[in-house]
Amino acid sequence: MSTLKPSQFLMIPGPTPVPSAVLEILARPPIGHRSTEFSNILTAVSKDLQALAQTKEDVFILTGSATLAMEAAISNTISAGDKVLCLVGGAFGERWANIAQAYGARVERLNYQPGTAVDVEQLADKLKADKEKTIKAVTVIHNETSTGVLSDLRQIAHLIRKHGALSLVDAVTSFGAINIPMDEWRVDVMLTGSQKALMLPPGLSMVFFGSRAWAAQATCKSPRFYTDLARYKKSLANNTVPFTANVSFVCALQKSLQLMQEEGLAAIQVRHFKLKAMVRAGVRALGLKLFVDDDFASPTITAILPPDKISVGDIRQALKQDFNIVVADGQESLQGKIFRIGHMGYVFERDILMTLACLHSVLKKLGHDVPAQPAIQAALQAASNK
Amino acid sequence: MSTLKPSQFLMIPGPTPVPSAVLEILARPPIGHRSTEFSNILTAVSKDLQALAQTKEDVFILTGSATLAMEAAISNTISAGDKVLCLVGGAFGERWANIAQAYGARVERLNYQPGTAVDVEQLADKLKADKEKTIKAVTVIHNETSTGVLSDLRQIAHLIRKHGALSLVDAVTSFGAINIPMDEWRVDVMLTGSQKALMLPPGLSMVFFGSRAWAAQATCKSPRFYTDLARYKKSLANNTVPFTANVSFVCALQKSLQLMQEEGLAAIQVRHFKLKAMVRAGVRALGLKLFVDDDFASPTITAILPPDKISVGDIRQALKQDFNIVVADGQESLQGKIFRIGHMGYVFERDILMTLACLHSVLKKLGHDVPAQPAIQAALQAASNK
Repeated sequence: MSTLKPSQFLMIPGPTPVPSAVLEILARPPIGHRSTEFSNILTAVSKDLQALAQTKEDVFILTGSATLAMEAAISNTISAGDKVLCLVGGAFGERWANIAQAYGARVERLNYQPGTAVDVEQLADKLKADKEKTIKAVTVIHNETSTGVLSDLRQIAHLIRKHGALSLVDAVTSFGAINIPMDEWRVDVMLTGSQKALMLPPGLSMVFFGSRAWAAQATCKSPRFYTDLARYKKSLANNTVPFTANVSFVCALQKSLQLMQEEGLAAIQVRHFKLKAMVRAGVRALGLKLFVDDDFASPTITAILPPDKISVGDIRQALKQDFNIVVADGQESLQGKIFRIGHMGYVFERDILMTLACLHSVLKKLGHDVPAQPAIQAALQAASNK
Repeated sequence: MSTLKPSQFLMIPGPTPVPSAVLEILARPPIGHRSTEFSNILTAVSKDLQALAQTKEDVFILTGSATLAMEAAISNTISAGDKVLCLVGGAFGERWANIAQAYGARVERLNYQPGTAVDVEQLADKLKADKEKTIKAVTVIHNETSTGVLSDLRQIAHLIRKHGALSLVDAVTSFGAINIPMDEWRVDVMLTGSQKALMLPPGLSMVFFGSRAWAAQATCKSPRFYTDLARYKKSLANNTVPFTANVSFVCALQKSLQLMQEEGLAAIQVRHFKLKAMVRAGVRALGLKLFVDDDFASPTITAILPPDKISVGDIRQALKQDFNIVVADGQESLQGKIFRIGHMGYVFERDILMTLACLHSVLKKLGHDVPAQPAIQAALQAASNK
């Protein structure tokens, strides 16, 4: 075997591949966070993010992972004793519940089966049963990364708004891949991270924070400092940040948002749905089962069951060893039961064909001997259908 | 004037210049945060940080700015109602007090005049007066960035330990530039950021968390999730992180720590004290007054009073416009009253000579006409004295 290896290729749900035009900016000497140059970039990036979300509400860039942004959503709106309804169908739905509990919220869970989406009628019933309107906020995972499920955020957010509660929405693995018109869909708080469809490495997160959330913030008693969005709002009004930001990443974000504008959100969405169709058709043609039904399959992440008698660990290890391609294991109770292929951000048809061909190779080596041709054919067919 | 400009040169107390060997790593495609490669780097970097602090205690890397690390120090040790003594002599001392207050602590301030260091005898008296030992923690700024003052952390931490309180130490602009043997000096919690002497852009912070702090953590009731250090400890025992880390920055940190090991902490410290001496001698020879006495002047940041009738804003603007060199304004009540030259991290004698020569040029243009030669001579003399 050659000593020269291809670089690690990420087909996981974040970090994701980063365009070289963005990487090049990360290699530049950092500029001052109080400089006019940085103020101009911060202002432009904030406007670009608002445009992408089609919102007039505020957006703030936090230096930190998306979990920090989830915590900001809670610490700015929920006080100890407040009732929060958490829609839980996977590891990230559970994370919302854990953060709310850490802040002393009375958490009620509406569980949905991992691999399925939020049942909108069940949610409607649950809210209807809350006659005294004690539910202050509902936490939502738009795209549950741990299972590869996309829920119907539009309907969910409408129901929550109708009830009068706040919607706190994790759009970490959907924002920038799917059109989410925040104001039209009546979302109150929405957050995402840099290392997904926004095509950066991990390190930044973004919180969209609507006017109804500000009303809650005014009376929210939870302790907070670094996540105190009022500080960010006050600073942003002066085109600056309350705490030293990751200036390099914000500059790189400007470039990736520019690349996204050039492609256009509609085209980006088409591309992601096409990649999903390709993966699903190809994986089925390899004789594997998909964890999620077509009806609510995520456009950015696909969960797959291993063939009988072949372990997820062996598949992941062989892909890594033979091709330096990384796919994700299942999380928590799904560990070892599914593997997940990410297809978000800077990912293209050729990457899916490569991954399917490599997956075929390692499955064959591990004893699951099916031909490659039908998988490649099915994927190409799926691509041309969309 | 040419359209080609030199790149922005940062002589501020962070962000600071970054070596190209480090920048190059930031331009690499990110690796997976659950990969063996990343686990190995995380483990190595954690050990290197412990070696730099000469400590057996834990260290955790947070994706976030140093203020997040300050908040982690508070949220893991201080519950609402606890008494915290804050040593305040500038903007960052005040920040400790603000964070503690945000978490409901009963904050008592021991103020010291901006531009002076913590008065150790006054602190001893203050602690002695706390006969019932109600002070749970004392917050300390080792190097007050807003004024350019280095306090005697060794003595301060000893006093705090003797009293039985926890020492929470901001070493943001001292760690990595000055030798801080954490265990020998009996520091309980210490934090720093990536964009100072560690020679990275802003985006990461590090918290050293000692065994006495863990004892406090066990009963600490403050809500926390992203800053919950128990999660980091549990993950690090498995060579991983609880939340997606800025993998690119952690990889780059490994390189900067390697560069620091090659130089050696003793040599690094000598270099910083030499740079301080050069700046102070040069600035004095330009006929300007220093804000801080020699006795407690910071080795990483120097605060300077502008000449009569010349504003700080004019000096900063001219340095920026004529030479694209950035120096910092004063913060809060010191805004417009002082300007600050940072000399931490990847900074060398030639940078100080350049800055002094450029400062001379803009001062002359602004009406403060003194010759450059004595300043350059004094700086060179100071360099050779050390």
